[in-house]
Amino acid sequence: MKNPRNYTMLADAYEFMMADAYLKNDLADQEAVFDVFFRKVPNDGGYAVMAGLGKVIDYIQNLSFTEEDLDYLRSIGNSEEYLEYLRNFRFSGDIYAIPDGTPVFPNEPLLTVKAPLPEAQLVETAILAIINGSMEHATGARRIIEATPANVKVMEFGARRADGLEAALIASTEAIMAGCSGTSNVMAAKMIGQKALGTMAHSFVETFKDEYAAFVAFAKRYPENCLLLVDTYDTLRSGVPNAIKTFRYMQEHGIPTDHIGIRIDSGDLAYLSKEARKLLDEAGFPNATICLSNSLSADVIISLRIQDAKFDSLGVGDNISKPEGRMGCVYKEVALINKGTVIPKIKLSNDIVKIVNPSFKNIYRAYDKTSGYALADVLCEKDEVLNEDIMTITSLIDFSKFTTIDNYTLVPLQQQIFEKGKLIYKDPSLMEKRDYCQEQMNKLYPEIRRITNPHVYYVDGSERYIALKKSMIEKAGKENV
Amino acid sequence: MKNPRNYTMLADAYEFMMADAYLKNDLADQEAVFDVFFRKVPNDGGYAVMAGLGKVIDYIQNLSFTEEDLDYLRSIGNSEEYLEYLRNFRFSGDIYAIPDGTPVFPNEPLLTVKAPLPEAQLVETAILAIINGSMEHATGARRIIEATPANVKVMEFGARRADGLEAALIASTEAIMAGCSGTSNVMAAKMIGQKALGTMAHSFVETFKDEYAAFVAFAKRYPENCLLLVDTYDTLRSGVPNAIKTFRYMQEHGIPTDHIGIRIDSGDLAYLSKEARKLLDEAGFPNATICLSNSLSADVIISLRIQDAKFDSLGVGDNISKPEGRMGCVYKEVALINKGTVIPKIKLSNDIVKIVNPSFKNIYRAYDKTSGYALADVLCEKDEVLNEDIMTITSLIDFSKFTTIDNYTLVPLQQQIFEKGKLIYKDPSLMEKRDYCQEQMNKLYPEIRRITNPHVYYVDGSERYIALKKSMIEKAGKENV
Repeated sequence: MKNPRNYTMLADAYEFMMADAYLKNDLADQEAVFDVFFRKVPNDGGYAVMAGLGKVIDYIQNLSFTEEDLDYLRSIGNSEEYLEYLRNFRFSGDIYAIPDGTPVFPNEPLLTVKAPLPEAQLVETAILAIINGSMEHATGARRIIEATPANVKVMEFGARRADGLEAALIASTEAIMAGCSGTSNVMAAKMIGQKALGTMAHSFVETFKDEYAAFVAFAKRYPENCLLLVDTYDTLRSGVPNAIKTFRYMQEHGIPTDHIGIRIDSGDLAYLSKEARKLLDEAGFPNATICLSNSLSADVIISLRIQDAKFDSLGVGDNISKPEGRMGCVYKEVALINKGTVIPKIKLSNDIVKIVNPSFKNIYRAYDKTSGYALADVLCEKDEVLNEDIMTITSLIDFSKFTTIDNYTLVPLQQQIFEKGKLIYKDPSLMEKRDYCQEQMNKLYPEIRRITNPHVYYVDGSERYIALKKSMIEKAGKENV
Repeated sequence: MKNPRNYTMLADAYEFMMADAYLKNDLADQEAVFDVFFRKVPNDGGYAVMAGLGKVIDYIQNLSFTEEDLDYLRSIGNSEEYLEYLRNFRFSGDIYAIPDGTPVFPNEPLLTVKAPLPEAQLVETAILAIINGSMEHATGARRIIEATPANVKVMEFGARRADGLEAALIASTEAIMAGCSGTSNVMAAKMIGQKALGTMAHSFVETFKDEYAAFVAFAKRYPENCLLLVDTYDTLRSGVPNAIKTFRYMQEHGIPTDHIGIRIDSGDLAYLSKEARKLLDEAGFPNATICLSNSLSADVIISLRIQDAKFDSLGVGDNISKPEGRMGCVYKEVALINKGTVIPKIKLSNDIVKIVNPSFKNIYRAYDKTSGYALADVLCEKDEVLNEDIMTITSLIDFSKFTTIDNYTLVPLQQQIFEKGKLIYKDPSLMEKRDYCQEQMNKLYPEIRRITNPHVYYVDGSERYIALKKSMIEKAGKENV
């Protein structure tokens, strides 16, 4: 999905102010390495879903300033020297990233920028906004999918609660990537070549002289997708009986009843769906499907299952377009590059969890050779070659916690996206990303995927990497006290 | 702010399916009235702030379908008759709305669409996404402003946590409208003709050989805006002492110290700000300002005030760009128009709070003639003339609760925006909206504005209106059982 504007100027003012000061201090050519990562999975979930890389690529490729932009930057205090630097600005650095659709975990470098400081700084705000926004929807949607039985389709229809029109497109498309079967958002569905889904609103039922008249009108027009909304007046006393009467009308008038069903959008969905199922079955319509909607969340879906609620599909809105769990990706300097040599950087914190993992890194996922399940992700330095047979990996936070793994295949998680400013990566289509996401999710242990109190997936460091981090913490601690 | 794309196709599929069925049933010319309203203020606040009208105007004016759109709509099952109807589609209805910046309350018609059914239905999704998105930021930002002492400036810098790039622009501009002093978002600031605000990130400090070198470099480049970030290593043992040393350096080198200060972005802000204030004062820099940031919310700001924390400005991110409280605006049919006659519609619910307020309505705000404070908002029928002297107004939910008000001035809250598809409203500039918002907020009793357990503002009905609603509920109840 292309960004709809040129967002070159979408950066926090300090990115420009710092860059200008770097120029002044002969640091404009100083190369640095920044990582994008998050510290906590939203909703206390076990994983997040990488998303937004396609939009980052589009943003980076279109970076360039107009004269009007430069005039504005002059007016807020930037120097002529810096404006001259920006005049023919193109991004010239390297970017590495984990592909869209990959399940990812706290402290992993989702995206790494290696570029001269003023460039690396300039792209911070937009990269974070893109990735935080996209991942929030993808992760929220995947959580819903994981809560839902495999044979039940989840439809996204949250556009009306999205954060504006553009965010509605992002939410709908990321939801499909993360595994939703379809979206009601016509513009989003058209963009990705899918059929948009939908039937009727309460207002449709209210417009006709009565519920039955509305249902019959709909059935005649859309026999191939005859999902009747039954909760406008009274689900069990009016809606379902009128739906059954309509299905009979269809039979009597030779209208095929292969694609009939009802949607319940309010009330006690567990109770109503079970009673509706009975009524439909007793009336001879066991093939009539039941769709449930109304503020569904992962927890509500699990509650419905426990109560043996009857449903064939679910419609989810807010909890995809505006998920409660926020993504908190940050962008932190992890190294400087001096004449090709990596100088790792660290920023201490009173809380060891908040210490940024230093250095220009690689990250590998170790899959068990026998089961295919992902065992752990391993951080190491960029130039490090990991042992292919057996390896001791250690917690990034508590260095006394280590594990030995063997019988694994290592797969690097990051791909190189830009090399010296040139795009060298082919971003897959949304549907390819969707298949890849499903495939990667299947490689996670069910204990990682579960909704409540998931097992914490290992994101550990190699021996060499942990030794580096340890020594840097000790050194920085001495220096700064 | 203009929408960046043509979003005509951004509608839920059912809007098209219903419209098509209306055509099939000779209901394409049936005029209907729909209200946009919300039922609950986010964060249990006392008011929300109307926003997004400017973007709705832009969306409505640009409604039109391309041949490619029509091809897509054909492929998802729309009829040729309907596609022909859409081919030269322009919005032809009336729209009324409460202006941006107005404090508004549950159950008020924020925006009313009166148009032939297929048109009124088509615009639902986009209008809701625009208004829900914009109001969430405006309301979230105003809550922060209300929690902050009047002499303290609030800067918005949440772009990096926004729901993508476009939502970042919306968040930043709505924050300014709702009362923030400025934004760090350069693109947003440029759009509205403001100076973008910002100083430095931790990475700036880390790039130099030590904290003091970074501070001096910054002070030399930006003496007019010398706000030093003091928490990269240790706020009180390193950051503040190095800042003081830098301010002394400035004095010694003839650099003006009129605009110096520090920003604290982590740790115990209450404690650190008080200690930093002491250190700065003792060093002879009582004019050095203190800016606090780091996940500030209304509650955190109030907690800082109670603890007598010292601060001259605040930087707020997530709680403006991604407020926790969601706006849940809905779009409901309230009347049909038959040959110019209003036929009010009602939809019952087991919960009286969820019964939609029927009919084509006006809403007035009654201000006390003596104090100027807003006393209540009064719903009435569109053709109703309210008494200017004394009036009994009744709860929309509990008809036994009524109040008599007098000594008031009545001001209609809605303006007509479109008349037969033609724009007849001049949308004010963002800065005009901002002044208007502040002025209207000042007319609310402090008890309505407070953060915790605010007093519930009266949104009541006129006697005639309540009589209508009552009789419709009774009638509908009999019909549908």
